[in-house]
Amino acid sequence: MGIGRFIAFEGGEGAGKSTQARLLAETLTAKDIKCVLTREPGGTPGAEAIRSLLLEPPGEGWGARAEALLFAAARADHVARLIRPALEAGDWVVCDRFLDSSRAYQGAAGALGDEMIRTLHRLGSEDLLPDLTIVLTASAERVAGRLADRDGGRADAIGGREAPYHARVASAFQEFTEQEPERFAFIDAEGTVEEVQARVMAAVAPLFEPPGPC
Amino acid sequence: MGIGRFIAFEGGEGAGKSTQARLLAETLTAKDIKCVLTREPGGTPGAEAIRSLLLEPPGEGWGARAEALLFAAARADHVARLIRPALEAGDWVVCDRFLDSSRAYQGAAGALGDEMIRTLHRLGSEDLLPDLTIVLTASAERVAGRLADRDGGRADAIGGREAPYHARVASAFQEFTEQEPERFAFIDAEGTVEEVQARVMAAVAPLFEPPGPC
Repeated sequence: MGIGRFIAFEGGEGAGKSTQARLLAETLTAKDIKCVLTREPGGTPGAEAIRSLLLEPPGEGWGARAEALLFAAARADHVARLIRPALEAGDWVVCDRFLDSSRAYQGAAGALGDEMIRTLHRLGSEDLLPDLTIVLTASAERVAGRLADRDGGRADAIGGREAPYHARVASAFQEFTEQEPERFAFIDAEGTVEEVQARVMAAVAPLFEPPGPC
Repeated sequence: MGIGRFIAFEGGEGAGKSTQARLLAETLTAKDIKCVLTREPGGTPGAEAIRSLLLEPPGEGWGARAEALLFAAARADHVARLIRPALEAGDWVVCDRFLDSSRAYQGAAGALGDEMIRTLHRLGSEDLLPDLTIVLTASAERVAGRLADRDGGRADAIGGREAPYHARVASAFQEFTEQEPERFAFIDAEGTVEEVQARVMAAVAPLFEPPGPC
């Protein structure tokens, strides 16, 4: 049995996370590495039901605290039912968004603070962290073009928030990378899909090596 | 403007909480006290949507951690959108179940522990506590009779759990009452509805008095 590895893709809206996560999963499969491609919020029937509540809120929309708890609940189900069992079976997991999205969106941009989000993650998911978190960054113009192409530019309850919120998200990802450089790879998402994929594979390469003797 | 008071009813399944909560709200209204009658999980559109997920789980059912987070999320919405605004307006709030249900069911019977449930309540609802928590207790035989009359005895994902779980819930409520006697009233739910209501009104009476000078 191999050692399961957990890779998350992060970044603002329209940076190309889903595309790059899918390409990485395809590349791993082609290398005969068993791989689960998943996303947050969602990834399990329970978490997908919570995703629907988050993106199309009933009533007047979620307050910041309820929203953070719902993300943590969805993640707890996803970790317990899918991610942890896959890693324990030796499979790799590639996830489109994970904890660091909650830290950037609800913790930093939503002003709840990092400690609350980390505490919820400890209580909900026993602090499971990715081996590698790839943050894709692209210029605001590039992102605007990609988002306009998607669903006719229709935004959900979170993607549709205003520009200063998304600027705070972007700077939060930069801060996380500075705080934990070994867990993050900050990758330029400008260029062709193939160019970006090559950068992703370079960041992932060290994970193919077996762990050292200590 | 008066001082809003917050009264929660707690106890196992079939102890008569909903009936007594309704009767208390009617009595308060008859006394010209503006009163909100509500319930948990639920009470707001968002929290009622979470209630549906809790009682009819998608997929293979919630794990303990995800379940506790969902209860805390529903409560955060209920507190922020309904309970706190009502109390701040000087209204009374009568709630069928609140935090102490999560402490008894998920914390004690579900084995997550009290500290986790209290932390989630601090993060989700800034630790709002009822002024008075009325715990209704009835014998197992009496409860079984009431539950059999309800919905043809059909149980949801939580009410339908096994007897040792419900016994642990009952002893947890007793422990909470011993720990914080000033916040709890442990009331015998045997007897007629009117007899129980008289006991409830005796427990509530001190709340009608204006607060003392210190």
